[in-house]
Amino acid sequence: MLIKNGKVIIFEENDVKVKESDIEVENNIIKKIAKSIEPDINEKIIDATGKVVMPGLINTHAHIAMSIFRGTFEGCNLYTWLNEKIWPIEAKLTKEDVYNASMLSILEMISTGTTCVNDHYFMSEEIRKALEESKLRAMITRVLMDTDGEEASKKRIEEFVDLYESRDETNELITYSVSPHGLYTCSGKLLKEARELAIKYNLPIHTHFLESIDEIEDIKRMHGEEASKVLKKYFSEIHTILAHGVKLNDEDVEILKTMNCSIAHNPISNFRLGCKIADVTKYLQNGINVALGTDGQGSGNNLDMFETMKIAALAQGGIHENEARIDSKEVIKMATINGAKLLGIDKKVGSIEEGKNADIIIVDISKKLDNIKMIPNNDIISNLVYNTEGRNVDTTIVNGEILMENREIKFIKIEEILKRFS
Amino acid sequence: MLIKNGKVIIFEENDVKVKESDIEVENNIIKKIAKSIEPDINEKIIDATGKVVMPGLINTHAHIAMSIFRGTFEGCNLYTWLNEKIWPIEAKLTKEDVYNASMLSILEMISTGTTCVNDHYFMSEEIRKALEESKLRAMITRVLMDTDGEEASKKRIEEFVDLYESRDETNELITYSVSPHGLYTCSGKLLKEARELAIKYNLPIHTHFLESIDEIEDIKRMHGEEASKVLKKYFSEIHTILAHGVKLNDEDVEILKTMNCSIAHNPISNFRLGCKIADVTKYLQNGINVALGTDGQGSGNNLDMFETMKIAALAQGGIHENEARIDSKEVIKMATINGAKLLGIDKKVGSIEEGKNADIIIVDISKKLDNIKMIPNNDIISNLVYNTEGRNVDTTIVNGEILMENREIKFIKIEEILKRFS
Repeated sequence: MLIKNGKVIIFEENDVKVKESDIEVENNIIKKIAKSIEPDINEKIIDATGKVVMPGLINTHAHIAMSIFRGTFEGCNLYTWLNEKIWPIEAKLTKEDVYNASMLSILEMISTGTTCVNDHYFMSEEIRKALEESKLRAMITRVLMDTDGEEASKKRIEEFVDLYESRDETNELITYSVSPHGLYTCSGKLLKEARELAIKYNLPIHTHFLESIDEIEDIKRMHGEEASKVLKKYFSEIHTILAHGVKLNDEDVEILKTMNCSIAHNPISNFRLGCKIADVTKYLQNGINVALGTDGQGSGNNLDMFETMKIAALAQGGIHENEARIDSKEVIKMATINGAKLLGIDKKVGSIEEGKNADIIIVDISKKLDNIKMIPNNDIISNLVYNTEGRNVDTTIVNGEILMENREIKFIKIEEILKRFS
Repeated sequence: MLIKNGKVIIFEENDVKVKESDIEVENNIIKKIAKSIEPDINEKIIDATGKVVMPGLINTHAHIAMSIFRGTFEGCNLYTWLNEKIWPIEAKLTKEDVYNASMLSILEMISTGTTCVNDHYFMSEEIRKALEESKLRAMITRVLMDTDGEEASKKRIEEFVDLYESRDETNELITYSVSPHGLYTCSGKLLKEARELAIKYNLPIHTHFLESIDEIEDIKRMHGEEASKVLKKYFSEIHTILAHGVKLNDEDVEILKTMNCSIAHNPISNFRLGCKIADVTKYLQNGINVALGTDGQGSGNNLDMFETMKIAALAQGGIHENEARIDSKEVIKMATINGAKLLGIDKKVGSIEEGKNADIIIVDISKKLDNIKMIPNNDIISNLVYNTEGRNVDTTIVNGEILMENREIKFIKIEEILKRFS
């Protein structure tokens, strides 16, 4: 496959550049990036003239089966929302619900430029089935928690083990995490079991961490010490993915710096659930890897990572009156290469580089009424972050395979999925 | 004209409802809202089946000629941005620049559902020309300020008077404000002159007010007392439009409550210029009218009021951890009827009601891949605020005249305008 004449987003040491280039993909690998590459006979050619070619977006924290909760329970804060609204409804979900809702989310992701998602849910065989059919890249799990008795906790662990043990080892697109729900919903015993599973299977930990103000005291009460210390106690040397991390104080930052962890920042969900704004400018300045996520649609509205990029960039001006806050170049990296680092797959994806797997999206920035928010195009990077919407993506490629071309979805029967929803 | 079968957004006493209705427009007036209205012979029929029909959006603070600065000067705070970046460039603008840039913004507004804009700029004959050609509703002005000598200040006042005196009194779409730039850029003498002009011509005042932290001390130094007291001193009983109002303390709120004023809230610009978040939840709770604006594209990125609605709703979760913050119903009103109140035209526009002028937009929410962020459509109001983009608007009507129908612009030669920009 040869992607011709695109404006390619390239990450350099301390910069993000836009370079007019062709990209040759052989099987699933980016073989060559150069000007005027001659196509081989019968090679598939994608004309990207005037379009942006960039690494696929990586959504580092989502619950893709939650698409069915879109538009519900506005105005709740995290605890009310989970305890009174979401958990009671989730208890009634069927496998079919989870499969259908996941398929809907996968359509949303492919059509808005996400090539990889880090999911956090249950009935995950259904989620895996939807992912396998659609050929998206993903990390999945079976969430563990401790809120309804020992029997239920034990069953969750068994379900995780079943999920992991039944994996298809030939499918390199789907990887796994061990996922205690959060420090305020898991006992020390369960955290220790999660740690052992992570070591046994060599998997990362993926957990909610200091999302809301209420957690701070709850964790102290439950575990006898501050959240970061609890985290360090159980997951000290383990690759750990922390969703949210809104409420980190300076001591927390100092502790996280010493750990092998990344933060999945979900600004839209944080706003919507009244959690205020994570100081990701500070985290990045301290060398902590920060990537972006949407959370589920129940709190994050949608899975459009372009919207998340824009709001992540803007939100820092909500807490920083000095000018050191992150800019659009940093945000593009948070949505791509930082996400790959968070998942531990940055040698493989997250940037357009020779030798990496071809997870690539092509974005329509042509001069027309639908793109009026990009005219004049004084700065492509700025426009990508501040004035682009997911539906500007016209082509989505995962591991060298085209999942959408010119807004035509390849492996999913759209009509059949959409008719299952209102 | 008869708009058939739409899902019409209707404001009731303390609620926002969605009602399936037809709307009959006679000349420029909404004559009847009811089910199954029979069309007259030869009546223009617009089929809105499955679409949302809502009041046109009112952008209460913009600088529409600033479209040419889109994507520039990221990371600056207000003072650096104005003093070092924007004002030096603006000094070089030609009339042609202002006309072309305004036309581009008008295209952006019509195609994203804005039917009325409150502009704040100079060379405003050019802006008026563009507005007259395009038939958008607007309030315009010639900004007054006092930063470069008495001669220049005097010339600005003359230009304002020329602009106002040369108005076309038969054109009810274009109204005027008297616009001192801000309390930190206008002397007491100039504020007094602005007051006199406002009284003489019976026009509102439109000024920047407490946008950034630096202003607080500057205003005190310049006028010898706090900003709200200065405001009250000069504009006590005058209809006053305050752009931003980010930095209001409790005393400011108490003073503003006693005045005839509204706040134009521009959350995207405030974020981008490092001004933090205006507590509009509190202002509204105190009975102060708050409407929405985009500011110019240099700080606000674009003029898409759907984006501004979404970010205004979300932003309150950045400062309110309790659940009393504004919701999507409130935000829809801020973008429409509150904007009309701010401009003093709420008897005429801002809601869909029999007897009001027909400023109406029709929004495509049909079930298709481009609208995947709205599926399932559990709540139309929530989807309008959180998951709709300006380009979902398919028809824009101002004063009974169709400016765009099915995304086709009527009175502007798009190609001719676009070719003037990169």
